[in-house]
Amino acid sequence: MNNKGNNIECFMLVLSSPSGAGKTALAKKLLKSDNSFNLSISVTTRTPRNGEINGKDYFFVNEKEFEKMVENNELLEFANVFSHKYGTKKDLVKKSLKNGKNVLFDIDWQGTKQLKDNIKISNQLVTVFILPPSLFELNRRLKNRALDSEQTLKKRMFEAEKEISHWVDYDYVIINDDFEKCFNDLHSIIRAEKLKKFRQISLEKFTKFST
Amino acid sequence: MNNKGNNIECFMLVLSSPSGAGKTALAKKLLKSDNSFNLSISVTTRTPRNGEINGKDYFFVNEKEFEKMVENNELLEFANVFSHKYGTKKDLVKKSLKNGKNVLFDIDWQGTKQLKDNIKISNQLVTVFILPPSLFELNRRLKNRALDSEQTLKKRMFEAEKEISHWVDYDYVIINDDFEKCFNDLHSIIRAEKLKKFRQISLEKFTKFST
Repeated sequence: MNNKGNNIECFMLVLSSPSGAGKTALAKKLLKSDNSFNLSISVTTRTPRNGEINGKDYFFVNEKEFEKMVENNELLEFANVFSHKYGTKKDLVKKSLKNGKNVLFDIDWQGTKQLKDNIKISNQLVTVFILPPSLFELNRRLKNRALDSEQTLKKRMFEAEKEISHWVDYDYVIINDDFEKCFNDLHSIIRAEKLKKFRQISLEKFTKFST
Repeated sequence: MNNKGNNIECFMLVLSSPSGAGKTALAKKLLKSDNSFNLSISVTTRTPRNGEINGKDYFFVNEKEFEKMVENNELLEFANVFSHKYGTKKDLVKKSLKNGKNVLFDIDWQGTKQLKDNIKISNQLVTVFILPPSLFELNRRLKNRALDSEQTLKKRMFEAEKEISHWVDYDYVIINDDFEKCFNDLHSIIRAEKLKKFRQISLEKFTKFST
């Protein structure tokens, strides 16, 4: 992606985790508490779950529409998860950054890898992996959600283990053993990232201090 | 410095600022509230101020002793500030890191530059610059301390402006317009640094999750 014209004070924050590690709840709380963030709404070919709204939770499209976006190079990243396709539209991300908003991504390791490869200003990307306290605990949480059949649960656990194996490719790693602590960790990461020297363009007034 | 045998979970945190920007108060509060830190006590040739204790605030040495340390390559960095020499002893830093402690440095831009040059594992160094809200405010604070003659005050302001011109060489920049906010910023930086992937060796247990 060409970042020309983007606000370099802003950044793209990726949250990844296996399902059941609490990522969605973290993202929701972050968006509520910090209005410097816009959520990047993914395009997907999967069927809407109960209560999911088109254009808010996802942009729901069919296979053909998705393929067209890929062909037209409209996606910043795309990935297959549980036999469904997920992607991020370039234009929406660009627009947010241009308007001085940070962009929050709720994507998996495949999407994160593509984002890394496709972004020209590498320090504009901040990646955070949320780990469950243990596999046992993750299994328990997925069972409690009771969304899935036994077979799907097994598949989810398999996918979770695969996802977890990629934590080493992220900038930051947080263990979600306590939601509030985990959220405060995420908040600290964001606060620190905002204090990074290269994001503080507004401080250029201090160059007048130079002798 | 050879970091072999050091704990790579630990890091060296540099705080720099012009005098009067609140760095010393921040360092004191940090050391009180976070016992993962040891202060790096500098060696100096300057005369002790009222109440300063040898071995606690500084190691006070004479010119000859200082020169010997330089010759014997015992110093990790050294610099001239206000016609006095300041330096950091390698062995003390090494010992702290080996014992699983982070090390806090209260040094100027010259010392920071040397630390950067002398450290083999670059991501073991985290540098933070504290800026005053304005030059006017800095002048007011220095006057209020009433430690110095008019001439020394002028010299301090000149040195302060020189120091400030180096803020761009630091990883993070904090403006100290409000002490509590500034401390919370520093705290967030430290918390985020502790969450960096490469510091979380203890998470290697999660590699067992890999498929």
